[in-house]
Amino acid sequence: MELVHKISEMQALASAWRAAGLSVGLVPTMGSLHEGHMSLVRKSAEENDRTVVSVFVNPIQFGANEDFDRYPRDLSRDLSLCGRAGADAVFNPSAAEMYPEGFCSRVEMSVLTENLCGKTRPAHFRGVCTVVLKLFLAALPDRAYFGQKDAQQLAVVRRMARDFNMRIEVVGAPIVREADGLAMSSRNAYLTAAERAAAPCLFRALSGGAELCRRGVVEARGIERRVREILSETPLARVDYVEVVDAETMRPLETVAGPALCAAAVYIGETRLIDNIALEARAGH
Amino acid sequence: MELVHKISEMQALASAWRAAGLSVGLVPTMGSLHEGHMSLVRKSAEENDRTVVSVFVNPIQFGANEDFDRYPRDLSRDLSLCGRAGADAVFNPSAAEMYPEGFCSRVEMSVLTENLCGKTRPAHFRGVCTVVLKLFLAALPDRAYFGQKDAQQLAVVRRMARDFNMRIEVVGAPIVREADGLAMSSRNAYLTAAERAAAPCLFRALSGGAELCRRGVVEARGIERRVREILSETPLARVDYVEVVDAETMRPLETVAGPALCAAAVYIGETRLIDNIALEARAGH
Repeated sequence: MELVHKISEMQALASAWRAAGLSVGLVPTMGSLHEGHMSLVRKSAEENDRTVVSVFVNPIQFGANEDFDRYPRDLSRDLSLCGRAGADAVFNPSAAEMYPEGFCSRVEMSVLTENLCGKTRPAHFRGVCTVVLKLFLAALPDRAYFGQKDAQQLAVVRRMARDFNMRIEVVGAPIVREADGLAMSSRNAYLTAAERAAAPCLFRALSGGAELCRRGVVEARGIERRVREILSETPLARVDYVEVVDAETMRPLETVAGPALCAAAVYIGETRLIDNIALEARAGH
Repeated sequence: MELVHKISEMQALASAWRAAGLSVGLVPTMGSLHEGHMSLVRKSAEENDRTVVSVFVNPIQFGANEDFDRYPRDLSRDLSLCGRAGADAVFNPSAAEMYPEGFCSRVEMSVLTENLCGKTRPAHFRGVCTVVLKLFLAALPDRAYFGQKDAQQLAVVRRMARDFNMRIEVVGAPIVREADGLAMSSRNAYLTAAERAAAPCLFRALSGGAELCRRGVVEARGIERRVREILSETPLARVDYVEVVDAETMRPLETVAGPALCAAAVYIGETRLIDNIALEARAGH
């Protein structure tokens, strides 16, 4: 497995692969890899001749008061995990390589970014889109893999790839969970023992909302209320948002009719966790 | 020569060329081609195995009160000019092909867009960057050609290509002028006979500023004042801006020391014309 730090070297490697007729999969990550990431790496390795994992803690997607400085980093552990999962290269550029002096371009997206995390983290998706575009143009993949935990990010990246005519298939993969339902996240490492014990409330609450919907409740407000009720049983949990949205456009829904998600962000102590669940309205509704 | 309307067809054509080892040049235009455009097409045809000319009047780079509707269009004339100049394909997508329903991504650029045309046309460069990124990802060129008349556009596109890791050489080509000095522009067609007679004042004024600089005046304000003085002799001319800027960053200068431009935008009647001239400070300054 190769470790690549320079954009130009990454492009040379990916171009050589593509020129040789090999397909390339990219798994963009901020490192601190967990089983959720590894499921993406394995999926990419199955579906492509070559797999690149990018490991880059992207400064421009963090707000001023967010956790950029303390975000967990462990490259040597990430490298050994990637090697075992079948990656062919890890792309690990420095911030100066990605954003040299004079850098002043950004990708902005409207509509899909107006709700959910876009509302509480106003510059977040600008940073995500910008770095993902740069990673796409560095690793030149045929397919790129993102987890469904960041459902809004997946929708945003898919939209960007389509809007900019990028011939890249953006593949979403199922959320990987701990045994007690907590969605895997690098940020779970921030939780104290008591917080970790409380954290499964998020998935439990979303499951309660989805169950209500399966039983025939299609009113978004009713489903959201049920999720908030369950969350309110956990004193350590403080809701950022709970919203029922269209699965593609991320727009808030009044009524669940087609593909929809219930998405939530919750502070457990100081740590902000996100999760979501697909809603399936009972046939006939 | 092929006429291509669909993005996917343009990509298929360009990919096939590149897979066959042929280099591709792109000349992005809004059509209504004049000798300035044709100099770019010929340059591209000399420097590349294949040349694509895009002809697309890009709605999102026009402001609400600007001339999108009346911008001159003549595709059949453009096609015959491109064929004679050595183009291999004309890419002429519809607005619906470029911006389908749900399109919501944009490229934003700071710094380079804060002055000159960026100040009086606030959304202009967002539209330019977005369409150029899309054209680059549709025509997949090795090189792209832009005229130096739109000096700020050239600097912005160059910066974007670098910022986004695009392996595309952005080539600038000299301004082509009418015999009386007026820079060629599709918008010259808007001028009445009296306005056309007055319009060379713009190049005359810029030349006066450049001459002052050659004679040793390096203070930007002094050069700008000279340009404004000469323009004030033409009653039909109304200044939008006259500014001495760094040739790469487009930032206003106090003193001309390195590569610099004097750029101006002037209304001749209702028609807004732009032009610029390189400044060369006398050695020793």
